[in-house]
Amino acid sequence: MATKSSFVDVDADSHFPLQNLPYGVFRIPNCAEGPRPGVAIGGLVLDLSVVASHGLFDGPILTNSDCFQQNYHDKHIGGLDEYNDEVIIDADDEPTLRDNSSLREKALLPMNSVEMVLPIVIGDYTDFYSSFYHAKNCGLMFRPENPIHPNWFQLPIAYHGRASSVVISGSDIIRPKGQSHPVGNSPPHFGPTQKLDFELEMAAVVGPGNEPGKPVDVNEAENHIFGLVLMNDWSGTTISPWIVTLEALEEFACDAPNQDPRPLPYLTEKKSKNYDISLEVAIKPAGEEQSSVVTRSNLKHLYWTLSQQLAHHTINGCNLRPGDLLGTGTISGPVPESLGCLLELTLNGQKPISLNNNSTRKFLEDGDEVVFTGFCKLILNQIAGKWLQDWVWEVFREGGSSSTLKKQHILSSSLS
Amino acid sequence: MATKSSFVDVDADSHFPLQNLPYGVFRIPNCAEGPRPGVAIGGLVLDLSVVASHGLFDGPILTNSDCFQQNYHDKHIGGLDEYNDEVIIDADDEPTLRDNSSLREKALLPMNSVEMVLPIVIGDYTDFYSSFYHAKNCGLMFRPENPIHPNWFQLPIAYHGRASSVVISGSDIIRPKGQSHPVGNSPPHFGPTQKLDFELEMAAVVGPGNEPGKPVDVNEAENHIFGLVLMNDWSGTTISPWIVTLEALEEFACDAPNQDPRPLPYLTEKKSKNYDISLEVAIKPAGEEQSSVVTRSNLKHLYWTLSQQLAHHTINGCNLRPGDLLGTGTISGPVPESLGCLLELTLNGQKPISLNNNSTRKFLEDGDEVVFTGFCKLILNQIAGKWLQDWVWEVFREGGSSSTLKKQHILSSSLS
Repeated sequence: MATKSSFVDVDADSHFPLQNLPYGVFRIPNCAEGPRPGVAIGGLVLDLSVVASHGLFDGPILTNSDCFQQNYHDKHIGGLDEYNDEVIIDADDEPTLRDNSSLREKALLPMNSVEMVLPIVIGDYTDFYSSFYHAKNCGLMFRPENPIHPNWFQLPIAYHGRASSVVISGSDIIRPKGQSHPVGNSPPHFGPTQKLDFELEMAAVVGPGNEPGKPVDVNEAENHIFGLVLMNDWSGTTISPWIVTLEALEEFACDAPNQDPRPLPYLTEKKSKNYDISLEVAIKPAGEEQSSVVTRSNLKHLYWTLSQQLAHHTINGCNLRPGDLLGTGTISGPVPESLGCLLELTLNGQKPISLNNNSTRKFLEDGDEVVFTGFCKLILNQIAGKWLQDWVWEVFREGGSSSTLKKQHILSSSLS
Repeated sequence: MATKSSFVDVDADSHFPLQNLPYGVFRIPNCAEGPRPGVAIGGLVLDLSVVASHGLFDGPILTNSDCFQQNYHDKHIGGLDEYNDEVIIDADDEPTLRDNSSLREKALLPMNSVEMVLPIVIGDYTDFYSSFYHAKNCGLMFRPENPIHPNWFQLPIAYHGRASSVVISGSDIIRPKGQSHPVGNSPPHFGPTQKLDFELEMAAVVGPGNEPGKPVDVNEAENHIFGLVLMNDWSGTTISPWIVTLEALEEFACDAPNQDPRPLPYLTEKKSKNYDISLEVAIKPAGEEQSSVVTRSNLKHLYWTLSQQLAHHTINGCNLRPGDLLGTGTISGPVPESLGCLLELTLNGQKPISLNNNSTRKFLEDGDEVVFTGFCKLILNQIAGKWLQDWVWEVFREGGSSSTLKKQHILSSSLS
């Protein structure tokens, strides 16, 4: 992989180097103009509506397209693969932007001056249950005699989630209320949930959809995924604002786990791959400066791949649309420090975990802020032709302890 | 209730008399103009975009609103109740339309010249399970030792359905494929479903929504329902094109069944009501002229009311949006002739039913057309002050045997 350069300065430790140009939708606070699509480059956001309206896209698809004059990316990502190939920010290719300082000032905005909003209209949100470790741990707690049904190994199980309550990172979440189990012969109890949890997930954002009755072949499924976001599936599903494309993640592809029994032909991939994305969850109690990392997992632990999830979703004839969200389910790893939710980490509240401020948690408390971070590190030595730790960059990261990055937190929540 | 009159001629046996002015979205086949909102009046469709653009709406809300210049009703129905009060078609109130023959020709189109499309953008589709008879019958088949869990009587159970595959009446449906149970130690079988069924349902179309974390009071829930459609929940959920407003149905309100145990306070209504809407399902085999009515049920058989469904949906803080669809679940009645799906009617295929053409059905066969019909009949004698059968009108009807009404069928399906 060649090192890329540009007239845009990118800090060496930026989450968004030139190898990772993720897509989002932003607006400028207190500005009459509505939300518009952008691309993150280092600490800047490139306003794609400005680039498009100045005629800087000259490829056959984007020249006359209004896909960047929308409030969402759905029209953009529903198109052909070529859409992305035409969106390349490069000093050599784009002298107009490089040399026109007033245009550059209009098109490239400091990231801390904008507010991120939901990047897509989510037509449907589906949540899978694809981590073997998570399924096993939950099964052992609630059905110890039969923790995982044999059916789990035959297909990627999913449920339909609620699209209306998917919100952008930083949105406050309100503790849900409802009925809970009756005690003895008493009627069920009504009140706020006592076991509010986070669930460490990622989600695929569907690019081009499929027609009803026309399933997507598992070996073509990747072409229907535009990119990935971090996702917390709690109450009011929260996603990260920047969609990292599969192209940017390709460097971090890795073999998926061996599947036994072998899945049916419609789920059998020529090459079955996961992505090596490190994932962390931290909890920051109300009023505290420091957050405590409570778990470290990795997307590569998924048993069912993203391609298998998408192929299975469509095999019955179900149609997907651009902007649909396919959650992975809670991503737990094999060791106790890599479990993806408090239910698992605390054994359903039996073993509280300790935070830096000496408080403990069985489940989330009012005012807790939950921060998800995802990142990839590529370690290579191009000269020697070997993979050695002499050059590191991060392609995917949301969250951090800096308050200026608050809007990138997967969750800045106030539980009330 | 006064008899209404208008300059628009309405046949005495029309499904859409002046007492029932339902909302839909239509387009003219082979016409460049896009879909637009309309109201059915007898055999005509009133183009609301034409009425609005000619300034005939002079109420405070609609005068400058673009809600009828949309392809969907969501913007219209998300507004206040007053929206509807301003949309009244009456000869005395609207002389412009009555006296301007060229405008009338442009605004009032023969129903058989237009094509109906989905009237709403369905953000989320939820399906309840609110018929006691349906729950009991299904439970007896699959869990005879425990047909209905006590929890069923504590809250209206629901699942989240798929919004992308909700289609308008008349859309072809493709038989879904998937995995079925393994036999002994063999792997699961893959292929088309052998038990394709219809499910006789209605669905509430949400009008004004609610904010996340702000539940709707059960006694206010009615104000969040714009109207009802017929719904077949099979593969590719099918809805009828005309949304009949709750106002039109108010004449047919009736007491809901007594609930024991008494539900929790958030589900307790000051006045608990259902609607007396007769429902029929007919099957028309491929190539046959005649359809066979296979069941007759009624919305009034629901145990959980529409208001309770909506209130329960929001009690955990979930937000509803205009155009959301809340299905009732299969509506079965107390007698064998009133069961709402073939699973119940044929006892899971054990007792095939006979059709007019001497064929039988365990489940649906390729090429079958399924026709749902819903109607209300009001029987009253205003002079005597008693309810007697001397004046009948139908406020709600979809379907029929006439081929010109094909687009109003809840389903004209080709199963392939």
